[in-house]
Amino acid sequence: MKAEILCVGTELLLGDILNTNTQYLSQQLALYGIDVYYQSVVGDNDSRLKELLEQVYDRSDLVITTGGLGPTEDDLTKETIASFFQRKLVLHEETLEELKAFFSKRGAKVNEGNKKQAYLPEGSIILHNDKGTAPGCIIEENNKIMVMLPGPPREMQHMFQSYVVPFLKECSMDTMESKLLRVFGIGEGHMEEKIQDIIHSQGNPTIAPYAKDHDCVIRITAKAETSQKCKEKIQEVEKKIRARLGEYIYSSGEETLDQLVPRLLVEKGITISMAESCTGGMLSSMLVEYPGVSKIFQQGFVTYSNEAKIKYVQVQPETLETYGAVSEQTAAEMAQGAAQVSQSHIGVGITGIAGPGGGTEEKPVGLVYVGLYYNGQVQVQRWLLNGDRQRIRKRTCLQVLDWIRRTIQ
Amino acid sequence: MKAEILCVGTELLLGDILNTNTQYLSQQLALYGIDVYYQSVVGDNDSRLKELLEQVYDRSDLVITTGGLGPTEDDLTKETIASFFQRKLVLHEETLEELKAFFSKRGAKVNEGNKKQAYLPEGSIILHNDKGTAPGCIIEENNKIMVMLPGPPREMQHMFQSYVVPFLKECSMDTMESKLLRVFGIGEGHMEEKIQDIIHSQGNPTIAPYAKDHDCVIRITAKAETSQKCKEKIQEVEKKIRARLGEYIYSSGEETLDQLVPRLLVEKGITISMAESCTGGMLSSMLVEYPGVSKIFQQGFVTYSNEAKIKYVQVQPETLETYGAVSEQTAAEMAQGAAQVSQSHIGVGITGIAGPGGGTEEKPVGLVYVGLYYNGQVQVQRWLLNGDRQRIRKRTCLQVLDWIRRTIQ
Repeated sequence: MKAEILCVGTELLLGDILNTNTQYLSQQLALYGIDVYYQSVVGDNDSRLKELLEQVYDRSDLVITTGGLGPTEDDLTKETIASFFQRKLVLHEETLEELKAFFSKRGAKVNEGNKKQAYLPEGSIILHNDKGTAPGCIIEENNKIMVMLPGPPREMQHMFQSYVVPFLKECSMDTMESKLLRVFGIGEGHMEEKIQDIIHSQGNPTIAPYAKDHDCVIRITAKAETSQKCKEKIQEVEKKIRARLGEYIYSSGEETLDQLVPRLLVEKGITISMAESCTGGMLSSMLVEYPGVSKIFQQGFVTYSNEAKIKYVQVQPETLETYGAVSEQTAAEMAQGAAQVSQSHIGVGITGIAGPGGGTEEKPVGLVYVGLYYNGQVQVQRWLLNGDRQRIRKRTCLQVLDWIRRTIQ
Repeated sequence: MKAEILCVGTELLLGDILNTNTQYLSQQLALYGIDVYYQSVVGDNDSRLKELLEQVYDRSDLVITTGGLGPTEDDLTKETIASFFQRKLVLHEETLEELKAFFSKRGAKVNEGNKKQAYLPEGSIILHNDKGTAPGCIIEENNKIMVMLPGPPREMQHMFQSYVVPFLKECSMDTMESKLLRVFGIGEGHMEEKIQDIIHSQGNPTIAPYAKDHDCVIRITAKAETSQKCKEKIQEVEKKIRARLGEYIYSSGEETLDQLVPRLLVEKGITISMAESCTGGMLSSMLVEYPGVSKIFQQGFVTYSNEAKIKYVQVQPETLETYGAVSEQTAAEMAQGAAQVSQSHIGVGITGIAGPGGGTEEKPVGLVYVGLYYNGQVQVQRWLLNGDRQRIRKRTCLQVLDWIRRTIQ
């Protein structure tokens, strides 16, 4: 199946936004054994889009468009494609009702622009947008498939996974299954080194390692006649990889570290509190993203100032004076204090220099001390992290989560 | 001048790398008043590239390609383009000497692959690569311009700035300037309704509104003989838009709400503390992302439990009993308590139901109460927000930031 991706949006042509949708869709299609031959971008312009549609429809079997499904007048993808296929746009009552509910919840009414989103090409398969207001759709004609998705990556990705992937799976003859192994605490280069021979001897299943912002992922994809046979093929390879990477693999599936750790804490009934300085509430906020966290989340303190460290989590003024706020001793006292004042099983204390200013030769930007109190004992780790302020803070939180995982697992 | 960008590389089609070259070149061309009408990506494939070349050369005056100038066999951009223009590739002695010097410096000899890089289309303008080994070139024919640049962003950007910009400036007459207006607190549809007639009557400057994840942006772009004249044109339109959208516009430029608010607080010396329940430290963490925030950030409490609300930010047990944790009264007391215990000018209290569970008919998922204490007074707002847990929490934080902005500006 020859596929191509066609993004619609003048903001892309102006370079106002980075086109991540194309990469996402290309990666996904590659995963399902579908070859992408072209990627194109065109503006919100009826005649140029139409011209391009003629070319892409001629040369490809599957075309996925993103963008131009919004409520404004320059959103014209659906209109242009409908006219290209000589189909009318018809009102989809269900979508209209959903739009009405969406806006009435916000104390607003559906305006004409929004109403436009409920009109979809006659005879198309309608793709519900669970994350926004613009539905997508699929038109099948002459053994060719045209999929229209909205532009915002969050909406597009969710819709692709929920509705387009199952649709494409039905079109394909072979069954395909894939499994993710999530790896943390080892760089992509080193990870690949450890499993190089397994990667080189791959066939079916395929093994695709790639680096995310803060962790690595290995996707194993197998093709076979049945789902069961796929699973068996995957299992065989997975076993080999696990033998090499061991505890670096923290999850197999979609669950990320910030979902795994609060789930484990809730399951095990281990309560937690934390005192954060340079991360400023980020660790706390990551945990609170997990629904049901209230069972184990006791208290979060953002103790940015020395006074707050003393007042709320029992750091000794002498400790701050002697060793400084960014020190092993302060991190240890913050962790213990956070646990004790809130009577939690686990206490975390984070103190560091996130930059860009504030670094010295002795204590450079990127230096972070983390204390972890558990079972009556405090341990401290010293990390020297790379990157900008945002990256140092995020990396710190993820390393803390990984440390908690290893501690309680 | 109609321009387009054509990237060559199978790695882009596989989604192995993110295409940042296209965004960079589009932004740069926009800056110099050159309109980009298409962006395309094709693999390292002679026949598909040739086919695409015919289309792009037909519809555009300026085509910039990136990629495919390397030493390996699948690098075929130069070869394909030369054959498209029916030109021979001829040895460029100077480039060959440079390549020899480059490799001998590294104790190596020029191999056949590298030698290939010294062959360039007859009659082309050769662009020196100061950052790598693959030179680029420009072919001018029939009043059309074809520019070939290497794929690695560092090399490509340097070559573009050093050699392509001066070349294009000589070709072009006009200058171009653009300005962003950032809008928060009104949906894209409603925003457009308010400025519809201004958008409809646009010409030069152009007006492009678009929605980001949580806010909207309007880009005004003007063309004129001088930068000063562009600015005047923009100012005229900006004035009209500001008259309609007023305080919804929070910034003109790159600065987002989570950068603007801490900057304003620091500039004005207004200290802040907060007690967060459903947002769980996210607001705090957003503020701490701003370097230098320690001057005004006093204390953040993540008071997820009732006990914590009572113990740390002085919420009355009776308030919680009578009205519940998610109530106007609790939000007010959280805000006032956070400010008072830390002696801050501003206190924020956030309590709500982020879901997916925990909602009732009376207090549904998405219900958030926020208290804002400032100048001895507490105000409370009640919001009903859409989306999943992550979105409700993020939206809450941004709305709080916007409220603070309106309060202190």
